[in-house]
Amino acid sequence: MNDMATSTAYLGATLIDGTGAPPLRDAAVVARDGRIAWTGPAAAFEATDDVRVVDLAGKHVIPGMLDANVHLLQHCDADVLLRYEPGAYDELIAEAAQVTLRAGFTTVMDTWGPLEALKRVRDRVNAGELTGSRIYLAGNIIGNGGPWSPDFYPDLGMGGAPCVVDAVNRHWTHNVGAGLSWMPAEQVREEVRAYVAASGIDFVKFASSSHAFSRFLALSPDAQRAIVEEAHAAGMTAQACTQAPEALKVTIEAGVDLLQHGNLTGLYPMPDATLDLIVERQLPCATFLFTERHTEAFNARRPTWHGTDWGRVMIIKDGNDRRLIERGAKLLLANDMGVFGPTASTSSLWGPYQTDMPDVPTHLGRSHVFWLRAAIERGMDPMAALLATTRNVAEAYGRDREVGTLEVGKRADLVALDGDPLADPDHYGRVALVVKDGVEIDRERLPEHPVLTRGVEANHLL
Amino acid sequence: MNDMATSTAYLGATLIDGTGAPPLRDAAVVARDGRIAWTGPAAAFEATDDVRVVDLAGKHVIPGMLDANVHLLQHCDADVLLRYEPGAYDELIAEAAQVTLRAGFTTVMDTWGPLEALKRVRDRVNAGELTGSRIYLAGNIIGNGGPWSPDFYPDLGMGGAPCVVDAVNRHWTHNVGAGLSWMPAEQVREEVRAYVAASGIDFVKFASSSHAFSRFLALSPDAQRAIVEEAHAAGMTAQACTQAPEALKVTIEAGVDLLQHGNLTGLYPMPDATLDLIVERQLPCATFLFTERHTEAFNARRPTWHGTDWGRVMIIKDGNDRRLIERGAKLLLANDMGVFGPTASTSSLWGPYQTDMPDVPTHLGRSHVFWLRAAIERGMDPMAALLATTRNVAEAYGRDREVGTLEVGKRADLVALDGDPLADPDHYGRVALVVKDGVEIDRERLPEHPVLTRGVEANHLL
Amino acid sequence: MNDMATSTAYLGATLIDGTGAPPLRDAAVVARDGRIAWTGPAAAFEATDDVRVVDLAGKHVIPGMLDANVHLLQHCDADVLLRYEPGAYDELIAEAAQVTLRAGFTTVMDTWGPLEALKRVRDRVNAGELTGSRIYLAGNIIGNGGPWSPDFYPDLGMGGAPCVVDAVNRHWTHNVGAGLSWMPAEQVREEVRAYVAASGIDFVKFASSSHAFSRFLALSPDAQRAIVEEAHAAGMTAQACTQAPEALKVTIEAGVDLLQHGNLTGLYPMPDATLDLIVERQLPCATFLFTERHTEAFNARRPTWHGTDWGRVMIIKDGNDRRLIERGAKLLLANDMGVFGPTASTSSLWGPYQTDMPDVPTHLGRSHVFWLRAAIERGMDPMAALLATTRNVAEAYGRDREVGTLEVGKRADLVALDGDPLADPDHYGRVALVVKDGVEIDRERLPEHPVLTRGVEANHLL
Amino acid sequence: MNDMATSTAYLGATLIDGTGAPPLRDAAVVARDGRIAWTGPAAAFEATDDVRVVDLAGKHVIPGMLDANVHLLQHCDADVLLRYEPGAYDELIAEAAQVTLRAGFTTVMDTWGPLEALKRVRDRVNAGELTGSRIYLAGNIIGNGGPWSPDFYPDLGMGGAPCVVDAVNRHWTHNVGAGLSWMPAEQVREEVRAYVAASGIDFVKFASSSHAFSRFLALSPDAQRAIVEEAHAAGMTAQACTQAPEALKVTIEAGVDLLQHGNLTGLYPMPDATLDLIVERQLPCATFLFTERHTEAFNARRPTWHGTDWGRVMIIKDGNDRRLIERGAKLLLANDMGVFGPTASTSSLWGPYQTDMPDVPTHLGRSHVFWLRAAIERGMDPMAALLATTRNVAEAYGRDREVGTLEVGKRADLVALDGDPLADPDHYGRVALVVKDGVEIDRERLPEHPVLTRGVEANHLL
Repeated sequence: MNDMATSTAYLGATLIDGTGAPPLRDAAVVARDGRIAWTGPAAAFEATDDVRVVDLAGKHVIPGMLDANVHLLQHCDADVLLRYEPGAYDELIAEAAQVTLRAGFTTVMDTWGPLEALKRVRDRVNAGELTGSRIYLAGNIIGNGGPWSPDFYPDLGMGGAPCVVDAVNRHWTHNVGAGLSWMPAEQVREEVRAYVAASGIDFVKFASSSHAFSRFLALSPDAQRAIVEEAHAAGMTAQACTQAPEALKVTIEAGVDLLQHGNLTGLYPMPDATLDLIVERQLPCATFLFTERHTEAFNARRPTWHGTDWGRVMIIKDGNDRRLIERGAKLLLANDMGVFGPTASTSSLWGPYQTDMPDVPTHLGRSHVFWLRAAIERGMDPMAALLATTRNVAEAYGRDREVGTLEVGKRADLVALDGDPLADPDHYGRVALVVKDGVEIDRERLPEHPVLTRGVEANHLL
Repeated sequence: MNDMATSTAYLGATLIDGTGAPPLRDAAVVARDGRIAWTGPAAAFEATDDVRVVDLAGKHVIPGMLDANVHLLQHCDADVLLRYEPGAYDELIAEAAQVTLRAGFTTVMDTWGPLEALKRVRDRVNAGELTGSRIYLAGNIIGNGGPWSPDFYPDLGMGGAPCVVDAVNRHWTHNVGAGLSWMPAEQVREEVRAYVAASGIDFVKFASSSHAFSRFLALSPDAQRAIVEEAHAAGMTAQACTQAPEALKVTIEAGVDLLQHGNLTGLYPMPDATLDLIVERQLPCATFLFTERHTEAFNARRPTWHGTDWGRVMIIKDGNDRRLIERGAKLLLANDMGVFGPTASTSSLWGPYQTDMPDVPTHLGRSHVFWLRAAIERGMDPMAALLATTRNVAEAYGRDREVGTLEVGKRADLVALDGDPLADPDHYGRVALVVKDGVEIDRERLPEHPVLTRGVEANHLL
Repeated sequence: MNDMATSTAYLGATLIDGTGAPPLRDAAVVARDGRIAWTGPAAAFEATDDVRVVDLAGKHVIPGMLDANVHLLQHCDADVLLRYEPGAYDELIAEAAQVTLRAGFTTVMDTWGPLEALKRVRDRVNAGELTGSRIYLAGNIIGNGGPWSPDFYPDLGMGGAPCVVDAVNRHWTHNVGAGLSWMPAEQVREEVRAYVAASGIDFVKFASSSHAFSRFLALSPDAQRAIVEEAHAAGMTAQACTQAPEALKVTIEAGVDLLQHGNLTGLYPMPDATLDLIVERQLPCATFLFTERHTEAFNARRPTWHGTDWGRVMIIKDGNDRRLIERGAKLLLANDMGVFGPTASTSSLWGPYQTDMPDVPTHLGRSHVFWLRAAIERGMDPMAALLATTRNVAEAYGRDREVGTLEVGKRADLVALDGDPLADPDHYGRVALVVKDGVEIDRERLPEHPVLTRGVEANHLL
Repeated sequence: MNDMATSTAYLGATLIDGTGAPPLRDAAVVARDGRIAWTGPAAAFEATDDVRVVDLAGKHVIPGMLDANVHLLQHCDADVLLRYEPGAYDELIAEAAQVTLRAGFTTVMDTWGPLEALKRVRDRVNAGELTGSRIYLAGNIIGNGGPWSPDFYPDLGMGGAPCVVDAVNRHWTHNVGAGLSWMPAEQVREEVRAYVAASGIDFVKFASSSHAFSRFLALSPDAQRAIVEEAHAAGMTAQACTQAPEALKVTIEAGVDLLQHGNLTGLYPMPDATLDLIVERQLPCATFLFTERHTEAFNARRPTWHGTDWGRVMIIKDGNDRRLIERGAKLLLANDMGVFGPTASTSSLWGPYQTDMPDVPTHLGRSHVFWLRAAIERGMDPMAALLATTRNVAEAYGRDREVGTLEVGKRADLVALDGDPLADPDHYGRVALVVKDGVEIDRERLPEHPVLTRGVEANHLL
């Protein structure tokens, strides 16, 4: 290392800068003070003493990736939530943010989780005290109860005394829980205004569809409009979770900035009029895409959840996915899941996914490759797929002045891959180097304090 | 009996004719060919050979009563639904329609039940083949699944093979079940149009609120409007079931003709703006009102249902009731319940209501008296209470040219009571005579074939 | 038909008379007044006018078969037990007894069922009023609760009001239910004495193992001895249901005459000392044997029941079966199951068995063929297999003076098969003729009034 | 404190020495080196320089008490077992052992718990590293599964992944779990021999009755005999848990040294012959006795557990208690319960006991007073009651050379009470001083590290 260096030049790689521009072979990217200072052909780069040079010949450099929907704490079983409660939720969240960083995600959007612990980890990452993906967070999904409420996984809290179940749920709900879906719209507005002002969140997420009882609307159109208006008044984006055609339409009409799994329309395909609207407005759609192999395995099982045939839901979803892609909708890569510990493998809720299913979409750090492969399988242009996990996410969240592309002035977040991601999406999984804010990440050290990822052999309970 | 008589004159009672006019003492009501031919002071009545005279001196005569919300088959436990399935649901429905007729209800509005059996009984009653209350029916509540679906009482179907559960549910749902709350609004419109055209129902009912998960909207505003429009296009009234403030507001905006338990607004009181609207439009509200004694007992138990604190819901409801009454809203008497057999007394679902609770509101043939007492307790004028179970129901259902008042030309449906109902609502329970379509009902014979009402001792299973 | 005939000669078949004697080719069996009058070489038979001749050339004639363990009412789901309760349980039982007769079982041992209905059917068969297998019955298994109690299938009664569940259970328990396993042994003796005297049963069955919680003893050694003594004092045989090694040992020491699934020893193999005892005493063991195909499919599923790994139980059982057969224990064919209607196919309890499993052992009328094939597969001599479903059952139940072999003086119960059962056990399923008490059964008519067997298309609930 | 003192004299109290001798007023008890050196009239005591004098005038001195059945870890809810697993079970156990010591129990018999943690705490107490009651322990109840198995509280483990449930259970079962009740008796013997040799337990406890399904025998008579023989061969006492008359008889015949809740005989009273045997042999019976107030409240609720009417069980038990006391059986005070944290109050399992019930028998440190009052209410002589919690327990466990009475040579364990326990059992709860092994306990410091006892306000989850 050159002690005099104040800049670093990444030389020799093929650069795909996330703007949609064609790849530039034998390129240079120069980072200074955590920002991109210059990009261009390596031949045009002039070395000086204060520039450290990193040779990336043979690599492909892309922007640091963004995941439009993660849950840094998703393994909500009792053995996790009770044993690591409450201080140590930080530890679980930090682990997950390092799992994502190691995989090349320099930024993740946490759209549902325990607010206070998430904020502490976010702030430690931002303060440079902790290595990890940059986190933007929503806290609770407004209108939903906590993880052990009927809206999510009540079975995981069974056996717990009600006061314990309530206490766990409160880590998530923070006064914008299930109660809001009972309220008149004006009262919803007041509650959301107070939450937005005081909670320290980065963006607003609310439930258009009921989470567990997916055919129902969790919030009325007026309530949804009130939430969007309050988010916007506070300078935040607003996004909604939808699972059925009318909930999707209603929430678009309410003015949301982003659709969480807008590709999911339950038992009936997305109506053409709605599809048209999404395409025309280029309304960002965070989706979870499944590979052919996964879809096939999923349908073979025909799982039901709260009485709904999810095999059929996934077939419908897959049809929507193909139409969205064909029409050029603005899709965002989203895992909508987290990190799971070894005990998940025998759980009735997660078990089958953790063990038997091919191309499982639930694991941070791995499953994004399946998303990208699935996108290609469904007809997406490889460059569009790359934008779905870089620029598009940044734009959708209003963070495109900072991240999402490798343009001068933006944060120096980049990933070097061992193969061309446009040629084969599996190459997204072959990460050679991750740079965040101009700092090269020692990926081998991550996660620094494995908890859920430390494996069965190290789990003292097993 | 006078063989030459072609008319009957009911003489000497105090007449409360259901128009809101003051009582007329020593009155005469003359019925001919099933219709009211004349009313007036008994002194003005001139006897002729062809008029049979019935002396009702000392009685009070009111119009045949109407119940704005009954479920002639409500005891949906497996021992009832399986043992009396399917032909014999007719038998249960006929029994219930005789229980109501015996109590003075010449007309009942069945708002949720097994369509085909209900129609068969309705038609037999109309054809004069069966004695019973006149029935108007909605069939299913559009958007809800059947009785053993998650929308109602899934526990009652537990233990049943799924194919049996589905088969039972289909008696109710008839293609306008839970699936409709998954659909885009335009598809809902098509399904409802077909249902209205072909089903033989008398009016349309749909779910604004989810039935079991009461904080959610079961149908979007557009879907609700589509349903109302289709009902009106077919010349039918449309009503909705609501349980929360936004669902109530949305459904009023959708143009419904009648609110089922519009007084129920969940965990938050009815907003003033909504109350104003109901009052100004005189939008009929079928309510269930609880007496003080019942409310107190209910709150002491603080029951929960699907995670909701129903003690609190009932306190809120009671406040709404008082405000509606104070403001002069158009309330309709509604039981929203049915006839229960002896096995209900040990069931975890019905048990506590059947046995320990005072002024239980769940029994056809008895509980209407509690409703009327509760109305008075909450400040309703006794005459308004009478209208709530006569004229108002007829008007709300668009049947006021036929029933609801004792005016010339209307059906000769009348009830003679042994006491003044305006003086004490308990007198509604002291029925001396019921006349329907000009025919005096032999109440002692009813129900003719007791099934659920035959008591424990006659129940071979017990 | 010869009007003068008072006897019938079955001529020309190969006779396997159930005594263990070698087959006699071209034989004659003469029946008169419902009894066997003569058997021998056809050549030695002298035709007379009063003998009707039935030509059975090419057939194989064996004694009417006996099943050592049936439950004529086994499909205990709510849709069956509630819809056909109570009078009509007779109808279900009659149907099952016709299914078994049609398959060649002239006698069946019902070891658990609704006492009164079973007796009525038994008595109607015996009186010649009903065509069906001859029934001997135990009523309840002493010490067990009814079908919807925790001892059997409590899930099937879920949703039922407790009083209904109790009422259904009482059809089975009749005062010798679960309560007896709470009692001191002397009190058990009193209760059993009274039951034996008054109930009208044919033999006594009791629970040595708990039925559902198979590792436990349901009755103490003293209680078991008391039951056996009371049965013997009343001239009845006594049998016990065992599922674990100590329960098996204890019940043998108590002096039982017959072991129900004595081959079942739970998670540990049958100890040698116990095996020796069974072999030396030639203690009859009603077993359920599974074919290789079935065992393999069963183990692949590794089902659990009340927390026990039944895959492992079945592997252990299979090892016991082979040792019992090798040592020449006296096994009895037993299905331990019943007749199932179409709704069973979707039930979580029966479903997988009814649809996916090969050589399913649960169906009366079919599964006995699998038993016989399984016996051969496990090394049983074909003649021993034949005795297991003829003579041995008769002897074990003390009915060998009446049935079990084709010897002079016994009941004229015989089956003609279209193939040699000693050559291929599948030939037991190719029934050409069934004669019971000298009467040829019109098998095509059976069951006369199909209920459970009428198929999905005829089931009005589906 | 006198630095020269090597002995301590407790002077002036009324001494009830636990031998059954009458109280000695104004007595002296001298302790030296942790043992009793002398007792007698205070007047006969000669003070010397090396004797420190403690004035106990006005107090009553009794031996340090013994509880014949505690579970130092009984609050087996997920929030406790998962959050304090596994190292910290020690912390919970230590807390409980300090709660008992504070209440005057210098010795407790832990009859079911997590073996390794219990041993660690026992050994730390014995080594003088930890203040707490002296612990003797059994580890698992042989033949039962762990706390979240079907034998105990499976509902408390619901929501847990099976591997987590298994892992928790294994803290208790240690190879002598449910599997032993499946085994042939000889195999049980081998397993128990190995367990006794290697486990470090102090005495043997096994299940005669099934714990959860109380009418069943968990182990056969032969298996029980084998266990008793192995215990005795290893110099240990053997005790059994019984809940029904036959299980009680069988286990007495097997030769046990102590009956755990031998007063519990399920739905039928203890037979006279069994009662006679218990009395004649003076077989120690650890019982839980309920006060009148508690019994009344309990019966009013008529709780059921695993289908058994426990109201009736408790009425039967109460009758047994009176007969045992009347006949002079050797009863031992036993709580059979533990220490509960604040979350227990809302749990469906413990809740009703923790909050609403008078004289609740489940709390270590408090409930023994109710036991003693209940004993008196049922006719026990006050001196006999005192022996039930002192000498009798020591004898029953074979520890009477060390503890149980205040006789020369025994451990200097004593309790000074502020009132006469023979006059009013509530005085057992008025502890003025506890001395264990000659050391005066600073009761105010106990428990030193409150976990479950620290109260709602300090519980971070609530």
